[in-house]
Amino acid sequence: MYKLYYAPGSAAMAPQVILNAIGAKHELILVDDDKREQKSAAYMALNPHGRVPTLVYDGANVMYESAAICLFLTERHPEAGLAPAVDHPDRGLFLQWMAYQTNTLQEALMHYWHGEYFIDGVDQQAQLSAKAEQRCDEMFGFLDGVLARSGPYLCGKNFYACDIFLAMLARWTRKMEKPAIRHAQIKRIVQHCLALPAYAKMLKDQGIEQAA
Amino acid sequence: MYKLYYAPGSAAMAPQVILNAIGAKHELILVDDDKREQKSAAYMALNPHGRVPTLVYDGANVMYESAAICLFLTERHPEAGLAPAVDHPDRGLFLQWMAYQTNTLQEALMHYWHGEYFIDGVDQQAQLSAKAEQRCDEMFGFLDGVLARSGPYLCGKNFYACDIFLAMLARWTRKMEKPAIRHAQIKRIVQHCLALPAYAKMLKDQGIEQAA
Repeated sequence: MYKLYYAPGSAAMAPQVILNAIGAKHELILVDDDKREQKSAAYMALNPHGRVPTLVYDGANVMYESAAICLFLTERHPEAGLAPAVDHPDRGLFLQWMAYQTNTLQEALMHYWHGEYFIDGVDQQAQLSAKAEQRCDEMFGFLDGVLARSGPYLCGKNFYACDIFLAMLARWTRKMEKPAIRHAQIKRIVQHCLALPAYAKMLKDQGIEQAA
Repeated sequence: MYKLYYAPGSAAMAPQVILNAIGAKHELILVDDDKREQKSAAYMALNPHGRVPTLVYDGANVMYESAAICLFLTERHPEAGLAPAVDHPDRGLFLQWMAYQTNTLQEALMHYWHGEYFIDGVDQQAQLSAKAEQRCDEMFGFLDGVLARSGPYLCGKNFYACDIFLAMLARWTRKMEKPAIRHAQIKRIVQHCLALPAYAKMLKDQGIEQAA
């Protein structure tokens, strides 16, 4: 039994898809940012950064960080096949794409959405955001090239949680002038994910939509 | 047999310590940034981002991303005890701290050292860097609190690769007005790492020093 604290459209998307895909019993708990619940004392006791997602497992064990939760769940439920086993030839690439996405692409998307975390001044935030928009397009273009050369999925012929993570991040570009799905291979990955019942259920449960 | 492409003081520090600690046969290959070797065609063929580290394993398999290489090596060499096993109660926290460090703390340090990646203009880069310096100190302060409350190590009573990663990132603050080791628990972790032969050998092989 897992509990996942989430907000619609947040980095809880990928962990929630994985919970659905592995068929693990779980409870979804909305942390309503409109009510400032992410910064409430009760929630900050679970996640001191006041962000979503947070996973509670095996009773009272708590962890956060979306990419970490994805790794954790795929390891615990190998039968779902959402990550290569430690001795599988794809393992290195799988970990690489999870790390790259969380520390480079996801961070660039944070610059776009939340410039105020990183620099003071409205003009400076707009500049940071504009550059992030350009950087994100370059990064998605780079990943598009990887998929074109050695796909169909990020690690090659097998679909894993890193592809779900990519579809989540692609949605975060939807308001950009150059959304990620303008790249044909990214669009294909998003379409693949949208067709998965586990992904579709996440969108429905979160009350959000995603175009491809 | 592994090959690790590195540069002194870079994110190759932690993977190199882990290679030493697990006793794996490996070759170190300097990618000299002073000679722009990180952006050379030969190196970019291995790592299209032109950064270090890059790991070559099992012949011609290539992966990059420091945190991913750390996870990969600890998984492959469980006997070194540098990561909790999948079914160990520390596993969730271990993955959390690896993800948090690479996507939040390491990124803030990139803002400090390489503002030009993120925003144009010398003044804006200085502002980004100044805020990053403040954010880094807050983050190290936060981790210091974690260590004080539930240490002695990041995951509790067991020392893991995430602690080595922390010592690496702590070194990256050495030119800041408030270096990470001003926090007593961070200083303690760095001192613990400096006393490890595997860490000391990395410093010696890279020709760098670290204060604590």
